[in-house]
Amino acid sequence: MSDTAPIGHFHAIIPAGGSGTRLWPLSRTGHPKFLLDPDRSGRSLLQRTWDRLEPLCGADRIAVVCGTTHVERIREQLPTGVHVIAEPSGRDSMPAIGLATAIIAERDPEAIVGSFAADHHIVDVPEFQTTVRRAAEVAERGFVTTIGIKPTHASTAFGYIESGAALEADLGAFEVRRFVEKPDTTTANQYLQSGDFSWNAGMFIMRADVLLSHLERLHPLMHEHLVTMARAWDTPEREAVMSERWPATTKIAIDHAIAEPISLEGSLAVVPGRFGWDDIGDFAALSQLTSSEAAVWVDASGSAFGDDGRQLVVLGIDDAVIVRTDDAILVTTGDRAQQVRQIPARLRELGLDHLT
Amino acid sequence: MSDTAPIGHFHAIIPAGGSGTRLWPLSRTGHPKFLLDPDRSGRSLLQRTWDRLEPLCGADRIAVVCGTTHVERIREQLPTGVHVIAEPSGRDSMPAIGLATAIIAERDPEAIVGSFAADHHIVDVPEFQTTVRRAAEVAERGFVTTIGIKPTHASTAFGYIESGAALEADLGAFEVRRFVEKPDTTTANQYLQSGDFSWNAGMFIMRADVLLSHLERLHPLMHEHLVTMARAWDTPEREAVMSERWPATTKIAIDHAIAEPISLEGSLAVVPGRFGWDDIGDFAALSQLTSSEAAVWVDASGSAFGDDGRQLVVLGIDDAVIVRTDDAILVTTGDRAQQVRQIPARLRELGLDHLT
Repeated sequence: MSDTAPIGHFHAIIPAGGSGTRLWPLSRTGHPKFLLDPDRSGRSLLQRTWDRLEPLCGADRIAVVCGTTHVERIREQLPTGVHVIAEPSGRDSMPAIGLATAIIAERDPEAIVGSFAADHHIVDVPEFQTTVRRAAEVAERGFVTTIGIKPTHASTAFGYIESGAALEADLGAFEVRRFVEKPDTTTANQYLQSGDFSWNAGMFIMRADVLLSHLERLHPLMHEHLVTMARAWDTPEREAVMSERWPATTKIAIDHAIAEPISLEGSLAVVPGRFGWDDIGDFAALSQLTSSEAAVWVDASGSAFGDDGRQLVVLGIDDAVIVRTDDAILVTTGDRAQQVRQIPARLRELGLDHLT
Repeated sequence: MSDTAPIGHFHAIIPAGGSGTRLWPLSRTGHPKFLLDPDRSGRSLLQRTWDRLEPLCGADRIAVVCGTTHVERIREQLPTGVHVIAEPSGRDSMPAIGLATAIIAERDPEAIVGSFAADHHIVDVPEFQTTVRRAAEVAERGFVTTIGIKPTHASTAFGYIESGAALEADLGAFEVRRFVEKPDTTTANQYLQSGDFSWNAGMFIMRADVLLSHLERLHPLMHEHLVTMARAWDTPEREAVMSERWPATTKIAIDHAIAEPISLEGSLAVVPGRFGWDDIGDFAALSQLTSSEAAVWVDASGSAFGDDGRQLVVLGIDDAVIVRTDDAILVTTGDRAQQVRQIPARLRELGLDHLT
């Protein structure tokens, strides 16, 4: 396998979800994080996800799975002809990835699928691509393979993956022992020091037939719905079958539906990732990623996002976060960044739906 | 003396000073606090000062003393023909009040002058006017008379006046024992409890001849300059004399030049004022005076000034102060409100003079 050519039979699935609450007011219900270019790189997070994956599989083997309301904006940002799978309703990641996989398997029974969130940040793209190539090799052998991000600090913002024995010396992959939820600081420090834990970045690479057979075994009813929809996909029945079957799928994340159960069976592999990764989960994370807009800090510190041409002065507040858009201004602090997600709900309570 | 007619021979002097730093960005060097209408009453602080005084003396017996750069804006806000005395440079309040007094005395040797800052807030205007009438009666008898604001709380933001014996039972005035600078909290509490202390609001009412004779005795050189300028005022020599004499006046406040020294001689009287007063010294004071602009406070509290049509949301900060203007946004907290005055200097250091 060449280091630059597309990976044989490799298909990328980009679940483009998100409710647009964690980076409010930059992100909105109708304009989620993946459409943003929060560090002003010139490309949105979605476009950069595309740019990273396209060399690995080619433009015609990338599928974006998204809510119906976002189809248009996604098509605007991506090359003409992009394969978009619109979900009639959000059912979490398993139905999204499962349907895409089933559709891909109809067309290419030997497909290897890799699922990568549309709104994550990756620093070292060549290293990411090398890691995905390695994961695809592991997947080829029948493992559902995740990429575990080697922790650079004791983060409490991510779930962790505990790895066990090496699968084979030359593969650079390990058995997954267990998934763990976001830990407290003490536990996160223990994880960091042990060296056996990596961050769960939600990246899964596997043969389509392997995923579908796990689904058939663990979630037979959902498997039947997904396969039925996939078979109807390229027919005039698509709409009718989707509207009947999609709402019947289980609303569940792939982590819980597949990864956790099969990790107990030794069928899940992890490939370590050392390419610099963040899910930009909140403004505190965004502050790490990008430099602040120009502001005058007097006996103060923090980050500003969204220059509106007016001079911002912050006096006497540490770790301040100020976000400006055309219609809203948010003032908070870095340690409250996770609470930002509460704001759109509060605004709706106040009848300010147009701001959410 | 009628309770509604102008007070005989009474002239009001309005020193309109201020560097526009304490309420930045609402106030600016070129647009000081007295030009603002910070509680959206429809009238600026200067206009309200005028409105309070006009019934006491008539429009033709009010003089505004200000810096040359503010003459035009002041004329825009006040009735045509307002008497404006432009200071070539800021020399603090004694030369300003002294020159105005000397000019008034040239025209009306029996004048009683009252000096009232252009940018203070008064709640109960009829009570204020009643108090000034009482102070004018005391002044008539030869006392330099100040109005001491009865404290409503143990403020550390104001200087205090300690009063002594009642002057005469029916006058409602007291001898001033001493002036004290802004106290610490413990001392302020003692002052509040003693009942003998009032806030120094910088209001002085006295016969013009009395003030000038104190000046002649205590500051003979300045007296000579002021009288010389006053005599030239209504002549073609005004400009020439002003440019020679004004810079030679001592830069000193009337408190230090006159009030403190004569309080030691028993020549200073205080009339208690109970009309609700504030000098709106900072945004914390302004928060008390006026309701906040519309904002959404999520686990937060504070005040917002200067609605710009964009939804403000504050999350997780207590006592926040957010101020918005066309060209600037300030984010701070109420307990840092006094530090706001440092901001314009900082902006000038950064070459942002246009914002100061």
